[in-house]
This record gives sequence, C-alpha cells and structure tokens, in this order.
Amino acid sequence: MARVVGDEVSNKQVIFRDYVTGFPKESDMYLRTGTIKLKVPEGSKAVLVKNLYLSCDPLMQFFMRKVQGPDRYDYYTPGSPVFGYGVGKVLDSGHPDFKAGDLVWGMTGWEEYSLITKSEGLIKIQHTPDDDVPLSYYTGILGMPGMTAYAGFYEVGAPKKGEYVFVSAASGAVGQLIGQFAKLTGCYVVGSAGSKEKVDLLKNELGFDEAFNYKEEHDLNIALKRYFPHGIDVYFEHVGGKMLDAVLLNMRHNGRIAVCGMISQYNLEEHEGIKNLLQIGFKWIHMKGYTHLNYYHLYPKFLDLVLPYIREKKIVYVEDIAEGLESGPAALVGLFTGRNFGKQVVAVARE
Amino acid sequence: MARVVGDEVSNKQVIFRDYVTGFPKESDMYLRTGTIKLKVPEGSKAVLVKNLYLSCDPLMQFFMRKVQGPDRYDYYTPGSPVFGYGVGKVLDSGHPDFKAGDLVWGMTGWEEYSLITKSEGLIKIQHTPDDDVPLSYYTGILGMPGMTAYAGFYEVGAPKKGEYVFVSAASGAVGQLIGQFAKLTGCYVVGSAGSKEKVDLLKNELGFDEAFNYKEEHDLNIALKRYFPHGIDVYFEHVGGKMLDAVLLNMRHNGRIAVCGMISQYNLEEHEGIKNLLQIGFKWIHMKGYTHLNYYHLYPKFLDLVLPYIREKKIVYVEDIAEGLESGPAALVGLFTGRNFGKQVVAVARE
Repeated sequence: MARVVGDEVSNKQVIFRDYVTGFPKESDMYLRTGTIKLKVPEGSKAVLVKNLYLSCDPLMQFFMRKVQGPDRYDYYTPGSPVFGYGVGKVLDSGHPDFKAGDLVWGMTGWEEYSLITKSEGLIKIQHTPDDDVPLSYYTGILGMPGMTAYAGFYEVGAPKKGEYVFVSAASGAVGQLIGQFAKLTGCYVVGSAGSKEKVDLLKNELGFDEAFNYKEEHDLNIALKRYFPHGIDVYFEHVGGKMLDAVLLNMRHNGRIAVCGMISQYNLEEHEGIKNLLQIGFKWIHMKGYTHLNYYHLYPKFLDLVLPYIREKKIVYVEDIAEGLESGPAALVGLFTGRNFGKQVVAVARE
Repeated sequence: MARVVGDEVSNKQVIFRDYVTGFPKESDMYLRTGTIKLKVPEGSKAVLVKNLYLSCDPLMQFFMRKVQGPDRYDYYTPGSPVFGYGVGKVLDSGHPDFKAGDLVWGMTGWEEYSLITKSEGLIKIQHTPDDDVPLSYYTGILGMPGMTAYAGFYEVGAPKKGEYVFVSAASGAVGQLIGQFAKLTGCYVVGSAGSKEKVDLLKNELGFDEAFNYKEEHDLNIALKRYFPHGIDVYFEHVGGKMLDAVLLNMRHNGRIAVCGMISQYNLEEHEGIKNLLQIGFKWIHMKGYTHLNYYHLYPKFLDLVLPYIREKKIVYVEDIAEGLESGPAALVGLFTGRNFGKQVVAVARE
C-alpha cells in the first residue's frame, strides 16, 4: 500500500539517467521515490493508473538514444521515468472511455502510478475476475508484441499452407507466436535462438518442426541449407546481420522477408554490411519493414483469433516475469544479452 | 544478300568463347560464318527468322557465367552463338501463330538467321509499312526493357501524383522510361547517371525535374539530401552498392524500392556490404525485386498505354544503334562501362 503524504502518495520510479550509446546498462537507470496525486487534474483527459505489469521490449533501447531509430515515438528525457508498454488499473479518469476500475494496456511509466496524458493510446482490456488468461499477457501475446506477430504473419509475410518458414529470435515475444501461427497454418517452420534451452523450448513446447542454436553454427548458410534443402519461402527477420545475409542466399523465388527488427545490429557503432542483396533482384524477393503501429485497426480481429487459441491451449506462451519495479533495469538490460527466457515482463503489482 | 551454299545460306554469327568472371570483354566473343537452311525442319514448331535488331541488355552478362545470377534463363554454351532479345522477320514457320513475313520479337541468336525452337516465347509485332514507330523500339521501349519499366513503375513502385521519385541509371533503357512515366503521373523525379551528357539528356530531353552525375558526388547521401529535402517515396534501383546505402538513409516512411538490377555489383568478386538496412524496419520500407517475366500478361495493356504516348511524342526514347553484327561484342561490352548513350541496339539488317 502506498505511503500517503498529504493528498499525495509515494511513487517509486525507474528514472532514465542519460542518453546512451550502444545497448543500455543497468546503471543507465536508477530508482527514485517521488510522490503523486491519485487524481486526474480538473478538465484534463488524462487517465491515472496503478501499474501492474511492465513490458521489456527491444524497442525501448531507441528511446534511450539521442539519434537514430524509428521516429514515430517519444524518446526518454534524462531525469524522468522510463516508459514503455504496460498493463494498469484505472484509479481515476478524465477520458470518457475509461473509468476507475477498468483494466487497460498501452504506454505507461516505469513507476507505481502513472498519469497518462496521451490516454487516447490506451486500450481497455475485457477481463473478468474468473478469466484464466493472465493479465500480464497484455504486455505480450495480447499486446504490442502479439499485434506485431499477427500483422507480420498475416499481413506482411503471409505464408500459405505447405510453405517453408524461418523465424529468427524465435523464442522471443514475437517469434514464438509467429512460429505457432505458422504451424496452425500448415507451414514447415524452423526457428533460431541463442541457447540450448531456447532451442528445446521451440521444438518441445512451441511445436516448431526444427530449431537450432545460431551460436553453435560456424556457417549460417550451411545451417540453413540443412534445414531448408528446398529454400525458404518466408523469413521473419528479428536479428539482421550475418543471419540475414545467409537467409538471402537461401530464399526461394517470390520469397518474402518480413522485417520486424534487427537486434544484432542495434548496438554496433558501424552496422554489418549485407552482401547478398542481389538475391532480391535475382529471386524477386519481397522485403518489407513493418510495425504494429499501422495495424491497430485489426486489434479486435486479432483478439478474436488469438484468445480462443490461448483458452484451448492451441497456442502456448512463455513469459519470464521479474518481480518488483526494482528488478526492472536488470530485466530490460537482459533482453540485449538474451538472458530472458520468453517474453520479459516486470510485475509491479498483482492488482 | 546471303551467299547460297547448296540448299543452305551463309550465316554470320557472334560466338561465345568461354565462361567469364566479372564483366565480359570483347575477346570473350568472336565472329564465325556458318551456314543455315532457311527452312524449318519438317514437323517442328520452330520459327526461322532473319534477325534485324539485337538488344544489348545487362542481363546478358549472367548468361556468360558458370555460377550466380538469375536462374530462370538458359545460359550460353561455349562455341555457340550469343543470344538475347531481338527483332526479326519470319522466313519460315512451323508454329501456327506465325507465318513468313511476320515481324516478331523475343529471344534470338546473335547471327544473321536463327532457327528459334522455343517459338512460344515470340511475340508478333503489329507493324504496318507506314508505321512511324521504329522496329528497333521492340528491343527496348516496346520490348523487354519497356515491359520491365512498365511493371516496375505501375505494378511494383506504383508512385502516386506528388510523390518523390528517384531513378538510378536513369538514362538507361529502363530508367528513361520510368522517369517519363513518373512525370506523366505527376511525380517529382530525379535521375542519376554517369556523365554530363547523360545528365543533360535527362533534364533537357526526358523531362526529369533534376538529374546529377553520381561520379561527381563525394557523398551520395549529401547529394540525395540536396535533391530530396523531404526524402524519397519511391526508388527505382538499377545500380546497388553505395547508391542503395545512401538511398536507404533518405527514404520516407512507407517508401518503396523497386529492385530491377544492381549493375554496380555484378563484376565484383565480393559485393559491397549494405549497412543501412535497419531503415527498412525503422521506416516500414517495402523493397521488392521484380522481372518482366512475371508480367507478360500485361503486354497488350502496356502497348495500349505506351504506343499513343510515343506517337504523340509525349514519351521520348533514346537509342544508341551500332551498325552490323560485327559491332555487337563492343556494343555489349560498352554497357558495363556506361559507353552507351540510351538503349544500346545492334542493327543486323534493316529489313
């Protein structure tokens, strides 16, 4: 229970220290306890939430940099809280679509309580007390990464039954869902990941036909030829660099590459050069960058598809939940060394 | 007039010497005079043509290599004639769609007369004696490069009125047509080329809004920022390498890159690495390789669009015609050093 200070309560926060180059370190963030009024200012359309679950997303590293990166987001301000996607409970609302007691997901601060002024970006969660779908899923499979996987799979890559599908970073929040969509569609799907445990997860729990540890392969081209003797129809790109170069050599005619991210490249001062782009012309490859931001209109359709799959256990989802706001910086930093096992979440409070 | 030898006539040919690495040299081909019967073998569906105009296309370098390159073509055989797209007059035909006297375009040999066994690939030219559209145009603007430009512009890049369009190798057979389609559509279009004369052609004859000589630019990124202060919506890619890397930095959100070829890379033992592919994810760029091969069904629609433009002089087309089969090897080799000025054609005979 929050400590009350006059008409304010105490509010633990994860503060962004200063702009970073390369991947963030734990010391780029620090904890501070401030205070907050649990009321929305008069006449404002803001929404005041108690944060329950915070999402750790690769995207957040860009918010910590001064230059470069996708430019349709706000970036962090040194001395202010880190923010990202999260699930919260509405305590007070100036926006007609939300009222106290509602559960919502969207952009929120890394703190116990947040006053969300851009409340139009929030999405109300339909959740009943007896619902067996965990609320934390709305940071992942039912939130931004889920939307990303859905858009990437059905709108961008669009593999058909019988096609050969490859997913990199396949045990991550987006990859694990894409692989399962591929199996539900009747594709042959192979995933790459960075540890034996992740490879086992892909093969034994998530239903991938094959999986391999890219760190154990001397030549990714040879590895891909082993798993795809007939080539790759659709590649879901999350890593970039050498993997992309090897994939290009193994694409089939009219193959598609859905580019969600290139996490292997983000921390490099100079990005690796991709040498096999001639294949795009030779094989009429279709490569497309995408983001969930363009697909929000499909969110209800997405839920209609995925919620039954989750309830029927036709889709499995693996989360790595760090307990407490204090564990946030380490959890976030762990994303970039592959320390997380499944979708990385920070639990701030359970209700 | 061909020398008659028994029931055969003499047939001058350009012979492919042996597989090449890198760009072809004149010495990779030689002239030989053989003989040919001007009759299609009994029961065959072949077509016998007298070749009039032969097309020099960048594509042909791949047919000279043992490995690599697009794989939906036949490759050259050492000791046999070079082949490529051309215009010919039918002398005899075993195929019901063609008869003596017809004019056709399609894959033919670099020789005076060719027996075309894959006659199903030939297209009949609707040409009357008083037609003011030159027959040689069916090697270019009305043939394969024209189809390529049409498909690239209307089906792949699909720029809309007011969009910012960039074309590399803009004075080439495909580029010059794409630029003119862009102007007819109401786009702002800039082209790059490799000499002052070509830049003048683009600006003064072909109606490009701007053009620049890439060889005179120290930093292609800066050059592109000068011509595209608001960025590029659609890039028509014909060169690859450093130009592509600079273009990626200057693309707008949802930009499209139509990949027709990457001529700067074909002769390199090791291809240049492209470092700015992260922009594909950041800006939701859509990059697509294509070829005319997938768009033959649109050929009648393409002619309906382009023939009136040519007759009304709303589209200008520049050819560089080398006279005589003997000039063929030098003309073909000149493509790769940029010696040609407009579409390179070899005139074997005028009728």
